[in-house]
Amino acid sequence: MPNPTSIGRTRWAIAEGYIPGASTSQDRAFVSHETACILNAGDRDAHVAITIYYADRDPVGPYQVTVPARRTRHVRFNDLTDPAPIPRDTDFSSVLESDVPIVVQHTRLDSRRAELALMTTAAFADD
Amino acid sequence: MPNPTSIGRTRWAIAEGYIPGASTSQDRAFVSHETACILNAGDRDAHVAITIYYADRDPVGPYQVTVPARRTRHVRFNDLTDPAPIPRDTDFSSVLESDVPIVVQHTRLDSRRAELALMTTAAFADD
Amino acid sequence: MPNPTSIGRTRWAIAEGYIPGASTSQDRAFVSHETACILNAGDRDAHVAITIYYADRDPVGPYQVTVPARRTRHVRFNDLTDPAPIPRDTDFSSVLESDVPIVVQHTRLDSRRAELALMTTAAFADD
Amino acid sequence: MPNPTSIGRTRWAIAEGYIPGASTSQDRAFVSHETACILNAGDRDAHVAITIYYADRDPVGPYQVTVPARRTRHVRFNDLTDPAPIPRDTDFSSVLESDVPIVVQHTRLDSRRAELALMTTAAFADD
Repeated sequence: MPNPTSIGRTRWAIAEGYIPGASTSQDRAFVSHETACILNAGDRDAHVAITIYYADRDPVGPYQVTVPARRTRHVRFNDLTDPAPIPRDTDFSSVLESDVPIVVQHTRLDSRRAELALMTTAAFADD
Repeated sequence: MPNPTSIGRTRWAIAEGYIPGASTSQDRAFVSHETACILNAGDRDAHVAITIYYADRDPVGPYQVTVPARRTRHVRFNDLTDPAPIPRDTDFSSVLESDVPIVVQHTRLDSRRAELALMTTAAFADD
Repeated sequence: MPNPTSIGRTRWAIAEGYIPGASTSQDRAFVSHETACILNAGDRDAHVAITIYYADRDPVGPYQVTVPARRTRHVRFNDLTDPAPIPRDTDFSSVLESDVPIVVQHTRLDSRRAELALMTTAAFADD
Repeated sequence: MPNPTSIGRTRWAIAEGYIPGASTSQDRAFVSHETACILNAGDRDAHVAITIYYADRDPVGPYQVTVPARRTRHVRFNDLTDPAPIPRDTDFSSVLESDVPIVVQHTRLDSRRAELALMTTAAFADD
């Protein structure tokens, strides 16, 4: 049996970022959202600092997120509030820095129309 | 004529994972599903061990999948049952480990609404 | 002025592959299709050999595609016929090998329903 | 607190490119568009030169874009006009070259039908 104790990188970037301000459902599963899925396959908790970059003002952060050892956490940018909520309908980018290796994937669900639109990509891993 | 005997890596991760629990069609092609497409272009069978990571409990696995030499296999996470089925409407991540180089791509088809939503990404390859 | 004479790799793989057999429009732009977008930014023509891998039979190929110097070519798998058409509604993967560096991106448009679904990813580059 | 002063690469390529010529809404948020999201997390402004490659004629460019230090810029290919607008309903690819490290992600919103289709991928980073 394989033992994937640790996999990934410690610095990641997601150049795309945009939380649609509207949704055709208020069910949490269908509210328009932008997510950073973070996998920590290792044996130590990951302390992840997220910095948000904007088009026309200084970056905001760090947003502190802990992903326990051998756990995944799908972080919705919608839910980040400390130090400040992320405005809707606004272009942004993000950088994620962790003290242990993690894997990051970016996903958006857009429900501004009645039907869903989805997109995803592996984030950019800086080595 | 080129002879792509072997291509890829032996350790892969997909940080995103979520099987929608609902579908507007029961036709297998249109049931909401999450897939790991695995290419084994080499001359030896690939024995792939998949480990599933969750947000709030220990990882489950390995799920054993064989991809024969010079074949592709599009593995639906929906179909994995041993050692345990993957719950629907639940965040997860996966790590895939193979004894020979493979290439992994992640795809989701979401048919919770009448129209389809699709997303895909190359998985993260650990070198 | 920058002069991006050459960029990319010579061996690429796309683990996902599936041409939906149905479409709600016969307009070429809206017919369900699977595409390998190939950029040859260099000064020499790229001779690309595509091999198709299946789940339950031997690989088929090579399909020979030329991408002229400093040109792009969006190759629809639907259009490949020599040595054999690619069956619809069938899982496959592909390996692309070029004699000069190229960049490959995979895109699918699915119009089996009235509304469109799209997905894309950078292909896997083997170094 | 982490200090992600700089992250990324200086040469990027997006092999896919296609601006749908039609849209079911003229609201800027819903007009069919193709975007290169560019993150400059560093302390110096990024001067980015974009070259557009076509299937049947010489490349056009460079399109000059500045992304200020510690800012993001989501560049719509629809908006590029100098030296020439990018034709709609036409296959293209792009190469982005910067004087400082940046991160690039490619996104398309397609509103040719009433419902939205989205796709995204990290661009290809040449090292």
